[in-house]
Amino acid sequence: MSINYPITTVNGLNVNHVPVSDRGLAYGDGLFETMLIVREDIPLWPLHHERLLKGLVRLQIAVESQRIRHVIDTALEAAKDVPADLLILKLIVTRGESSRGYQVDSSVHSTLITQLSPLVLDVNKHEGVHVHCCEHVLMPIAWAGLKTLNQLPYVLAAQERSHTHFDEGLLFTAEGELIEATARNIFIVKDDKIVTPIIDQCGVAGVMRQNIANKIAVQIGVEVIEQRLYKEDLFSADEVFLANSISGIWPVIECEKQRWLIGPITRSLQAMCHGVFIGNT
Amino acid sequence: MSINYPITTVNGLNVNHVPVSDRGLAYGDGLFETMLIVREDIPLWPLHHERLLKGLVRLQIAVESQRIRHVIDTALEAAKDVPADLLILKLIVTRGESSRGYQVDSSVHSTLITQLSPLVLDVNKHEGVHVHCCEHVLMPIAWAGLKTLNQLPYVLAAQERSHTHFDEGLLFTAEGELIEATARNIFIVKDDKIVTPIIDQCGVAGVMRQNIANKIAVQIGVEVIEQRLYKEDLFSADEVFLANSISGIWPVIECEKQRWLIGPITRSLQAMCHGVFIGNT
Repeated sequence: MSINYPITTVNGLNVNHVPVSDRGLAYGDGLFETMLIVREDIPLWPLHHERLLKGLVRLQIAVESQRIRHVIDTALEAAKDVPADLLILKLIVTRGESSRGYQVDSSVHSTLITQLSPLVLDVNKHEGVHVHCCEHVLMPIAWAGLKTLNQLPYVLAAQERSHTHFDEGLLFTAEGELIEATARNIFIVKDDKIVTPIIDQCGVAGVMRQNIANKIAVQIGVEVIEQRLYKEDLFSADEVFLANSISGIWPVIECEKQRWLIGPITRSLQAMCHGVFIGNT
Repeated sequence: MSINYPITTVNGLNVNHVPVSDRGLAYGDGLFETMLIVREDIPLWPLHHERLLKGLVRLQIAVESQRIRHVIDTALEAAKDVPADLLILKLIVTRGESSRGYQVDSSVHSTLITQLSPLVLDVNKHEGVHVHCCEHVLMPIAWAGLKTLNQLPYVLAAQERSHTHFDEGLLFTAEGELIEATARNIFIVKDDKIVTPIIDQCGVAGVMRQNIANKIAVQIGVEVIEQRLYKEDLFSADEVFLANSISGIWPVIECEKQRWLIGPITRSLQAMCHGVFIGNT
């Protein structure tokens, strides 16, 4: 019997739809996490969970922690039946169903959605990607760092590389500050240090970004610094790479005719990061 | 037999749910219009339609115009069976279903959703409302004026008046520019002219705002000016009112201990606007 992916649950039930009156649809009133499952486990779960909890506090969405635990456990159980080494689990939490209007009464009950599917890693991208600088600029947001369901800026930015050969697009603020790529954080290597943009006005504080700073870079003995970066910092960098928790580390080998080789720090991080993917962390 | 409201259709079918993989839920990748139905007609349809089309162009969402016409006609037909003088019709257009990722291939097919329900006008509000100034500040957005499904700023702002007696909250930019209320545009009267904020960096360009500027104010012989406004303009105004296409004109009678009487221009506009509600336009 063939399985249709993603395998979806809504509030623990095996359905693949939500009511139209769910505020996730109406207003983007919710959060999400996209997570890698390796050998029936989510290696970066503590970091995903931490960001999700921060988001729930910021948006004032109430979810009992045992409900989150339950849907994750259910998804991990379902993952056992999927014939793939790597899987993706997307968790969406919305404020729930309500009648029309931005205000909501205290009876609202949050919606927990999981989507599970096999992941086929595009290993070519680990040998280098071509990126462009998006014309779409990132504006400040009141939920910098978090992953809400208000993701139009990234949809608009990603549209720019339709019908191009680019693998990713880099995002800047109106003031020219480099922030991230459309679905990844960015890192440059300069003088043997890793530098990544400060995520305080806009952008997503990626779980892999945090894992690199707290763990992987430490393991290879390289310091990670958060700093405001501009285009000139990018173009004078020794190495440039992108990272997220699903596809790992992508070395950037070209942007606007500037070319980079895949440097030793990027390669070391990739080797360490590979441990996450094969479950050796 | 009792009817459950809202009466919902998705792509013309009588269902009240959408797939979890709809991008409206995943990313807020869509638009909406909330419209008043009076005697089986939408008096402000041309203005709603115009803003919707602008939004579709901005987001590059393709919808055949006959599909929009069809779902509106179907909703108006269904409205005949609802025992109420005034009804609300909410139309949601999303980019449609896709697999994970911000980018989308050209096979995506937009989703059209309608929600129909009776409206009970809160006539008390037409005798004056109490508002507060929100602490949440509006940030610039790349879709100023439009009504996308990325509405978290209004959700966060509306939360501030939970457990208060306020009817609405006023929204300012970080620079102190007055923009709108959480679900309404704002207008002040000064020296017998109506002034409303410029909506170019953030905010929603309301259909009723446009109707007042283009038609209702003209009919009472008062000029409407778009101008940058600040708190001091608000507090030195002769009259203040809020308006949207569902609830009409709400005179503001109190904000931060400042009190206003309901002035002659607000009353005249209300009288003209009443024509819209009773179908005499």
